[in-house]
Amino acid sequence: MELHFLGTGAGLPSKIRNVTSLVLDLLPERGTYWMFDCGEGTQHQVLHSRVKLSKLDKMFVTHLHGDHIFGIPGVLSSRSFHGGTQALTIYGPPGVKDYVMASLNLSQTHLTYPIEIQEISEAGGVIFQDDEVTVSAQWLLHGIPSLGYRIVEADRPGEFYPQKAMELGLPPGPLYAALQAGQTVESATGRQITPEDVLGPPRPGRTVTILGDTRPCDAIFDLARDADVLVHEATFSSAQSTLAHAYHHSTTVEAAKAAKRSNVGQLILTHVSARYRPEDVDGLTAEAMQIFPDVHVASDFLTVPIKPKA
Amino acid sequence: MELHFLGTGAGLPSKIRNVTSLVLDLLPERGTYWMFDCGEGTQHQVLHSRVKLSKLDKMFVTHLHGDHIFGIPGVLSSRSFHGGTQALTIYGPPGVKDYVMASLNLSQTHLTYPIEIQEISEAGGVIFQDDEVTVSAQWLLHGIPSLGYRIVEADRPGEFYPQKAMELGLPPGPLYAALQAGQTVESATGRQITPEDVLGPPRPGRTVTILGDTRPCDAIFDLARDADVLVHEATFSSAQSTLAHAYHHSTTVEAAKAAKRSNVGQLILTHVSARYRPEDVDGLTAEAMQIFPDVHVASDFLTVPIKPKA
Repeated sequence: MELHFLGTGAGLPSKIRNVTSLVLDLLPERGTYWMFDCGEGTQHQVLHSRVKLSKLDKMFVTHLHGDHIFGIPGVLSSRSFHGGTQALTIYGPPGVKDYVMASLNLSQTHLTYPIEIQEISEAGGVIFQDDEVTVSAQWLLHGIPSLGYRIVEADRPGEFYPQKAMELGLPPGPLYAALQAGQTVESATGRQITPEDVLGPPRPGRTVTILGDTRPCDAIFDLARDADVLVHEATFSSAQSTLAHAYHHSTTVEAAKAAKRSNVGQLILTHVSARYRPEDVDGLTAEAMQIFPDVHVASDFLTVPIKPKA
Repeated sequence: MELHFLGTGAGLPSKIRNVTSLVLDLLPERGTYWMFDCGEGTQHQVLHSRVKLSKLDKMFVTHLHGDHIFGIPGVLSSRSFHGGTQALTIYGPPGVKDYVMASLNLSQTHLTYPIEIQEISEAGGVIFQDDEVTVSAQWLLHGIPSLGYRIVEADRPGEFYPQKAMELGLPPGPLYAALQAGQTVESATGRQITPEDVLGPPRPGRTVTILGDTRPCDAIFDLARDADVLVHEATFSSAQSTLAHAYHHSTTVEAAKAAKRSNVGQLILTHVSARYRPEDVDGLTAEAMQIFPDVHVASDFLTVPIKPKA
């Protein structure tokens, strides 16, 4: 489980940052990629990344501003070219279906796979759940409807140590699976063997929170509480807080305050205005770090492993 | 008057070629740029070119396939970011207005300048004309409606030589403009001075023909007859003529035959399938050259000056 930042700019592409897109790499866990937002040129960025569009099976859209959606038709179309056949689900605000279907229909793009588009209700809440992961969504504060997503991995039992089981007189077989499923079993000599005897400590699921563009608001804390990693926009430096307010965006310091209040493990800032040059990044990081120490300003092609917070 | 190729690939972007876009640079003649097609990532290519979006005042769309239009909303939006205020006109097939307006409206993109969208009728013909240039359009043959455009510069009088006028006893003044407008004037000594006395040979207007995706068809000759430069798609090599036919495209050799039959000055091939690597380009050129000698396979960022044909 790791994040690949494909685009970390705001509003329009620059030579340094593409517009927004982020991929959650679930290849080890589920064999798939999930994409969060898809600005124009995302498929071009994919060409220079490890991401394979054929293995993309979910796309989460935070809001309908062009720098977050104008790459969707191209990604969908190229996924066909690359031989994608598995269904793809798109989640997003009301209007995302009209946008995607109008783009595909008017361009006479015929996909080689089925797509499903789920528009998220005013109430938000859980939008996807299976045995491995739960995704919930809440509405943020951005002038137009903008979503944040909380992705929670299910807790997993501790690692199974077959060596320990064998030492306790249990040969490999179906009882191993029973122990891993949490059951106590009996060896051939009548000895009771508990899961605790052969498993390491339980592995709590990781949580990652990915926000759309937003002003500071309470929904952030619902979404980010105790998350291992929080991805938060920081369009402006704290010196530009007036602009941030006027354009419904956050500053570095506002994002850091949200991370602190939410007690997250790590804060990644993205959606950085093109006014900031590479040499400005240290300053942006430093002002956020005064509030929240574990902070990093994302750059295009940055990879962030999702590690359980300390 | 020159062409800047911003994207020369077919279908989907590769690391080598972006999808289709071409800019006609009319900066010396009109102070503007005209764009022909606008695949995804065109605004990114613009960042690496001399083209300024604020000076783009016309966009001509050949057809609605995604690799020719998915960059339009981003170019329009970024032209606002870059402070464009002058009106922009888009020409294209029926449906182009729905596509552009749906993309702008659903993304709540508010442009800082007016746009006008003219959908071209079944009859084609002249779609724009002023004192300097005439643009006409015809329908090609591509499975979906696809246009070719012929841009004809008005003939201009020969270059004016003030030195000759002064030698004939005519001081600088309004009579110079009269001579350049084709009138005979009289000097202070009563001498008749004709335009031929002080002007170089008349300069015929140049013609450039830019085609959308197409199979060979008669409309190509209407559009390309005696053109100085013909831009023709060549998605496939002649070895792949079956694929070209199946996908409504042309081969290098079919494009070269069209150039020969149309008696053009120079042929530029573009819209090259991603199956061809840089090392294949010489072979593509060579097979076209057997039919038509003055041929060049475009690459991204190629600039082609429009010179009168010999």
